[in-house]
Amino acid sequence: MLEIYMQPETITTPDNLEKPGHFCGICGIWSPLPINVHKYTFYMLFALQHRGQEACGIAWQDSTRIKTDKTLGMVSQRMETWLTTQEVSTSAIGHVRYATHGGSGIINAQPIAIYCNKGHIALAHNGNLSNANELREELFNKGNIFQTTTDSEIILHRISHSLKQSKIDILHDALQGVEGAYSLCMLWDNDLILIRDPCGFRPLYYAQKDAVWYTASEPCALYSIAAENIHEVKPGEIIIINNDGLHSYTLKPSAPLRLSHCIFELIYFARPDSELFGKSIYAFRKSLGERLAYTDDLKPDIVIPVPDSGTIAAIGYAQAKQCNFELALTRNHYTGRSFILPTKNEREFAVRMKLHPISSIIKNKKVVLIDDSLVRGTTSGIIVALMREAGAKEVHLRLSSPELKWPCYYGIDIPTREELISNRLSPEAIAHAIGADSVRFMSLEDLHTCAGHDACNYCTACFSGQYPTKLPSK
Amino acid sequence: MLEIYMQPETITTPDNLEKPGHFCGICGIWSPLPINVHKYTFYMLFALQHRGQEACGIAWQDSTRIKTDKTLGMVSQRMETWLTTQEVSTSAIGHVRYATHGGSGIINAQPIAIYCNKGHIALAHNGNLSNANELREELFNKGNIFQTTTDSEIILHRISHSLKQSKIDILHDALQGVEGAYSLCMLWDNDLILIRDPCGFRPLYYAQKDAVWYTASEPCALYSIAAENIHEVKPGEIIIINNDGLHSYTLKPSAPLRLSHCIFELIYFARPDSELFGKSIYAFRKSLGERLAYTDDLKPDIVIPVPDSGTIAAIGYAQAKQCNFELALTRNHYTGRSFILPTKNEREFAVRMKLHPISSIIKNKKVVLIDDSLVRGTTSGIIVALMREAGAKEVHLRLSSPELKWPCYYGIDIPTREELISNRLSPEAIAHAIGADSVRFMSLEDLHTCAGHDACNYCTACFSGQYPTKLPSK
Amino acid sequence: MLEIYMQPETITTPDNLEKPGHFCGICGIWSPLPINVHKYTFYMLFALQHRGQEACGIAWQDSTRIKTDKTLGMVSQRMETWLTTQEVSTSAIGHVRYATHGGSGIINAQPIAIYCNKGHIALAHNGNLSNANELREELFNKGNIFQTTTDSEIILHRISHSLKQSKIDILHDALQGVEGAYSLCMLWDNDLILIRDPCGFRPLYYAQKDAVWYTASEPCALYSIAAENIHEVKPGEIIIINNDGLHSYTLKPSAPLRLSHCIFELIYFARPDSELFGKSIYAFRKSLGERLAYTDDLKPDIVIPVPDSGTIAAIGYAQAKQCNFELALTRNHYTGRSFILPTKNEREFAVRMKLHPISSIIKNKKVVLIDDSLVRGTTSGIIVALMREAGAKEVHLRLSSPELKWPCYYGIDIPTREELISNRLSPEAIAHAIGADSVRFMSLEDLHTCAGHDACNYCTACFSGQYPTKLPSK
Amino acid sequence: MLEIYMQPETITTPDNLEKPGHFCGICGIWSPLPINVHKYTFYMLFALQHRGQEACGIAWQDSTRIKTDKTLGMVSQRMETWLTTQEVSTSAIGHVRYATHGGSGIINAQPIAIYCNKGHIALAHNGNLSNANELREELFNKGNIFQTTTDSEIILHRISHSLKQSKIDILHDALQGVEGAYSLCMLWDNDLILIRDPCGFRPLYYAQKDAVWYTASEPCALYSIAAENIHEVKPGEIIIINNDGLHSYTLKPSAPLRLSHCIFELIYFARPDSELFGKSIYAFRKSLGERLAYTDDLKPDIVIPVPDSGTIAAIGYAQAKQCNFELALTRNHYTGRSFILPTKNEREFAVRMKLHPISSIIKNKKVVLIDDSLVRGTTSGIIVALMREAGAKEVHLRLSSPELKWPCYYGIDIPTREELISNRLSPEAIAHAIGADSVRFMSLEDLHTCAGHDACNYCTACFSGQYPTKLPSK
Repeated sequence: MLEIYMQPETITTPDNLEKPGHFCGICGIWSPLPINVHKYTFYMLFALQHRGQEACGIAWQDSTRIKTDKTLGMVSQRMETWLTTQEVSTSAIGHVRYATHGGSGIINAQPIAIYCNKGHIALAHNGNLSNANELREELFNKGNIFQTTTDSEIILHRISHSLKQSKIDILHDALQGVEGAYSLCMLWDNDLILIRDPCGFRPLYYAQKDAVWYTASEPCALYSIAAENIHEVKPGEIIIINNDGLHSYTLKPSAPLRLSHCIFELIYFARPDSELFGKSIYAFRKSLGERLAYTDDLKPDIVIPVPDSGTIAAIGYAQAKQCNFELALTRNHYTGRSFILPTKNEREFAVRMKLHPISSIIKNKKVVLIDDSLVRGTTSGIIVALMREAGAKEVHLRLSSPELKWPCYYGIDIPTREELISNRLSPEAIAHAIGADSVRFMSLEDLHTCAGHDACNYCTACFSGQYPTKLPSK
Repeated sequence: MLEIYMQPETITTPDNLEKPGHFCGICGIWSPLPINVHKYTFYMLFALQHRGQEACGIAWQDSTRIKTDKTLGMVSQRMETWLTTQEVSTSAIGHVRYATHGGSGIINAQPIAIYCNKGHIALAHNGNLSNANELREELFNKGNIFQTTTDSEIILHRISHSLKQSKIDILHDALQGVEGAYSLCMLWDNDLILIRDPCGFRPLYYAQKDAVWYTASEPCALYSIAAENIHEVKPGEIIIINNDGLHSYTLKPSAPLRLSHCIFELIYFARPDSELFGKSIYAFRKSLGERLAYTDDLKPDIVIPVPDSGTIAAIGYAQAKQCNFELALTRNHYTGRSFILPTKNEREFAVRMKLHPISSIIKNKKVVLIDDSLVRGTTSGIIVALMREAGAKEVHLRLSSPELKWPCYYGIDIPTREELISNRLSPEAIAHAIGADSVRFMSLEDLHTCAGHDACNYCTACFSGQYPTKLPSK
Repeated sequence: MLEIYMQPETITTPDNLEKPGHFCGICGIWSPLPINVHKYTFYMLFALQHRGQEACGIAWQDSTRIKTDKTLGMVSQRMETWLTTQEVSTSAIGHVRYATHGGSGIINAQPIAIYCNKGHIALAHNGNLSNANELREELFNKGNIFQTTTDSEIILHRISHSLKQSKIDILHDALQGVEGAYSLCMLWDNDLILIRDPCGFRPLYYAQKDAVWYTASEPCALYSIAAENIHEVKPGEIIIINNDGLHSYTLKPSAPLRLSHCIFELIYFARPDSELFGKSIYAFRKSLGERLAYTDDLKPDIVIPVPDSGTIAAIGYAQAKQCNFELALTRNHYTGRSFILPTKNEREFAVRMKLHPISSIIKNKKVVLIDDSLVRGTTSGIIVALMREAGAKEVHLRLSSPELKWPCYYGIDIPTREELISNRLSPEAIAHAIGADSVRFMSLEDLHTCAGHDACNYCTACFSGQYPTKLPSK
Repeated sequence: MLEIYMQPETITTPDNLEKPGHFCGICGIWSPLPINVHKYTFYMLFALQHRGQEACGIAWQDSTRIKTDKTLGMVSQRMETWLTTQEVSTSAIGHVRYATHGGSGIINAQPIAIYCNKGHIALAHNGNLSNANELREELFNKGNIFQTTTDSEIILHRISHSLKQSKIDILHDALQGVEGAYSLCMLWDNDLILIRDPCGFRPLYYAQKDAVWYTASEPCALYSIAAENIHEVKPGEIIIINNDGLHSYTLKPSAPLRLSHCIFELIYFARPDSELFGKSIYAFRKSLGERLAYTDDLKPDIVIPVPDSGTIAAIGYAQAKQCNFELALTRNHYTGRSFILPTKNEREFAVRMKLHPISSIIKNKKVVLIDDSLVRGTTSGIIVALMREAGAKEVHLRLSSPELKWPCYYGIDIPTREELISNRLSPEAIAHAIGADSVRFMSLEDLHTCAGHDACNYCTACFSGQYPTKLPSK
């Protein structure tokens, strides 16, 4: 999945439609007494930076209203401001957004803060609604206006339109009929509200420390503020935190739903030190590599990961094969915020600037390259060429996930089916196309095996085409 | 009115409510073929910079949607970007916002671009709606959400809620019941739309040059792109410009209305080389000074304007009195974008940094100071003290407008009644308070005399309390 | 002299040689106890901003060495930093640099701080050395290296090369043989040193307030920090301020020299509220206008200044002629920091964006335009055209200085002789070239008359070619 | 050596003296025809970014002189400017500077460009002169001034002072008596000059591609522009490249010298894919880990590197011990340019934000941590604590270099002897101090063994105190 990762950094495709709202990180804080919420939000967003580098923002409760501070780029840009501000508050939420094709400007940065008949509300959203178009259409017909192209705005409209009285009734009402993935942090007047969709697509965790409540997409963000006793916001749970304490409610889904944790969170997206859906990310990725090894006849001389997405699976693969793991393709981490090359022709330069093979290790070796997934195949072709230039005798590519064939409607930024190489070519044909001696994917069965006893609780629609929710009509 | 002008630059009052949308400048462009709309919008906004230095922005028609580029601060910040972009388009609108108390952040910068059941729309608005609270309440009750605190968002909601079909019917429908001041530039799909409220509070002009249509708050912006044959968008007129040419329509007001041009545009706000409401701004301000002189017994040695707001009236006063006009209070124009002093205690430093008396001219003279208006009186007190320090024998203050006693609901940023010095003190008491030998205001009758035969077409509510529209209930 | 003023803002001529060091402003501060020197330096530099907008900087005494903070652009860019820093110090100097042709980068920004066998020294310099090339050659031959292209670096080298022991002996030694214009502020270890060349080309003033010493190019900067009892650093005076108090010394020039105050400081450069060389700037400029009027047969309908350089002379002209002064050519002050148009072809746009004629005043009038000087004549041609477009019946140009025919070697940024229109054309031919009905310059005799009894103490070489010092050989 | 790496990012120590000029990266380019030198310099500097993140700069030959563009921070900040400029030139040099204690401001950024009796010269320097103080003293006494605190300025002065005629004679003359480390790239009029000190402390390589010459500190930068046939600038070699081709000369050292390549380039500093001093960096670091393992009785459960400095040695250690390598301490790479925490008290937060243990892997394990070196020991203590929190049963620290006991005079930024923990404590005492079960260093003999047959060609003074050149007197 290096390709997905590299694209926003290397090539802008301004002709593409913007698809904001995909992969994101969210966090929140609620304190009985005013504290420096900017500081703690910074620490948490910084720990969630891997979930989105395109934009970041914070919304906090001011004396009379909710204020926001949003910017394009990474959280470190706001470090000085947020760590040194004298302003205090009792609550805040934060958001980082993934760099999608073409960039989508500050207008779509979150949290989104509104004023409506229900009061002042700010929302940070991770996930995509699978019936967003239908819901938006319905709101259009009622005469509502949209100022962003995010799914998140839909939820705010529905809250405002509810005829219910209490916050919990309004939330039940507003989320009734909303399908797909949504992990939410909200500020609503003085309350902090945490919500996770009934399928549990995206993660959300919380913890209390010294009377202050913290919440974040991944436990790693809660570790960063040294919180302990970390709890999961359960699929379909609504948590309201305010001066009356923490109250938990259960969303009643309109139709029976099955749990559908995004398997890609485990494969690629989450931080290795997080524990998501009851699984250690690091251990899971390692087990993928081991499984790949057990089912592979190859006898490689060395195992090389495509950094950083393939690294942990490669460790597992090498241990299982009992052959040498080598970081013989190193990565330059100094790419900074806006590493966009002026022309597409310079793509090869971009890869050369970012990835460096160690020829002394690679020379005359039978190499197995491990990556997490294969999207378009463009970058992989260049990497294989780099290996050949460095003197590799054979280059075999192994992917720690099955063939990507279907779009995701729940927040993973997968290109159209036509662009996905696995829809056009068999593994053998891919090997030919990218110049590798062989290419092998993990099978869907093996992936289920690695997921273990609760394998049925995961969404693997991008591999199988079996979607856990109704699909958008168009 | 130097005080109004200085406050945003020198003192922030974050405890004040934000009142965005006041005094602004707008412009627009429509071309049959794609041209560099950013460049021409820059030229026009630059010429309208005096109407607002807090924020600026542009919205332009992209191939599939409307894009915006907005920033806090002055237009010159975007000069390089807008003058050098290779992007072309067939239409664009622009906006500059006045620096109101406390600043109001990028969230309220215009144009506001939305997507709704009527298509893609962007709006740039100059003026304030006097029944904004009622209209917002009504929209709240229907479940609409607000992402800005501008009145302009109200108009967009009403457009989206209309059940009519054609653009013109929708606009009639949406503006029915909207009271107060609104000069509007809109992009609606590929059309450029110009609207002025039936009272004609704020100005709006347009011209065609080489098949391209340009529109702007003041003629001076149209001069800057060398347009000729400048036309007024008439009070209550709706103009739609598209591939079918220019079409003019008339708004039918719900109740009979009288013309109510803002007299403060003439007294203080518009650029001297503009001709607004059929009057030369320069000539009108000069006539105010002449009138002040004719009705004043004072025999001053020299006439000194408070720069720059009192300058033209001072020229008229001096010519009428046949005594020497001297620019003996000079102003530092290098204040730049964000001239905000850290503490209120430094106010006197702020005035010293900005205004410099020429003692060689002032010494032992009987001075008459001319300004356009008196708001709180704070700065005037410091100016009188500067004159005394410079050796003035006598200091008399003359204002080229009547006593400011009432708030404005149509877009002039006047403080509360309690803060207006003329509500608390008589001219004699003001003179005592600010240390002047005498203070005299122009009478409302004299102002009407200067306005001439169409004096009844002006709104002078801030002096008289006689408002041309129904007042907000609260 | 609007042309000189406009060029750096409107047209860059990167093919020109860079000529840094011309027109500048300097200031300094010395306190017995550590104080917030950044703040006071900011106030003084802000008041000197008219003397240079290209770059600004401060050097201050740190515990062990001298630190600098320099930036391209205006002082307001550093306002927040300098007004809010907690750092204190006992001494500092500051500098603003005039925008010369082509810009010359941060490398030439001052103060220049060095370390040498005489200790830590920082220098801020206003003026140009007329024998810079000879002195630089001599230093070259001794093996010295130059990191800037300023004349100021020469003085620092000469200090370092001196074999004397005490600061005052070293300074005498270093300045022996240095010809031309130099007003200097220096930090030398813990001393503040003020120096003015024996001819007194450029101004320098100082004052004490509450035990702290302040110095600045013009009194207006000392007014801004509310200093009183302002003293002139006398031509040829060296003042050393340290814990032993203030000590004054006299430079012994190598050859007898006559006083040569730059007359252009009075005509154009200094701020109107300053009093330089014993003269009020405002009163002097007004007297130039009066003199122009007395010697002019013209019977104009109205007198219009070219803003802002011709304004005060125009007031004098109008009073003397007893005809109406009108600010009928207004100027947009929002040009900001880097107002550089992309192509030369857009020059006319640049003038239109900056200067706006008031046609209601100009129409059918016999206009006299007043400016301070005429350099290349390019802008004047455009201004005359603007007047014609605005309906002027006749346009007469009057200049409050004689014909500019000679280059300046002391710091005025005058183009080469070939470019100076008065070297190529008679006033009549100039009138024809720029489309004016007539053009008249002040005569050198009249200028001397206005300068009064000490007229012989001024340098008027740019008009007469009679230079007060030896000329550079080439 | 993570500590060295972390300090500039986490803690500023403004009370420290500034020590600029240490660890740096340099590059250069020379072309027979004008080309886009900015672009290629960017590519090379980007590949050298690991050698310095504090400041970067370029100097290039303009038609008449040498221009520079320097900035604080990383190369990616200049990416847009340098990749898109239309300017072409025949030669350029570039520099990146290591972030030293306290930062040292733009004034010390390189290349330094001067004008002197030898022409226009720009210099980029990697290394420190061991007799800098003596040489500077000598130049002081001759009256030279210093505008930076770099050693590099000394070399420029000496060039300017030479009485020789030809460039090569001047260089011989100027470098006679200069001791210590200097790898240099110079622009001198139209020539590109490469120099390496006779001891060969710091690396320097060059290659020709399509008639253009490229040079850089490490081969990895030459790979980035796809150059082949890479040559070493030999110790004591001077190479002059100009229109007459490439000419090589040999510096005659004043005293017999032995080769003294910096062993720390291999241990820590160079990029793993570079081949320096005839050795593959990756293979060397791996061999260090292997050697550590062979001489270690420990039977660990897992081997964990301190990222990124200990990673490759850890791979070698794990392979030699045949036990599992785990990346169980992950590092957040999103720290950006200026990751400086406001207070020292927040150091532990800083480590938590940057390093994340994977408890699922660490729990109940006997862990060996591998790092490259130990400086102060502060960070190591925190890392050991993180391991304990994550449940490690035992924590053993192994260092792939000997005990650091002596300062470096050739460019490595090692703190004072008092601060070096190995000068105060034995390995056993260190283990106690940082809470580890054991701490072991590589022995100097083992390091020599790894260096192989040419071990005597390396400088290991920081371990042994045996300096290859005369020491500074003080």
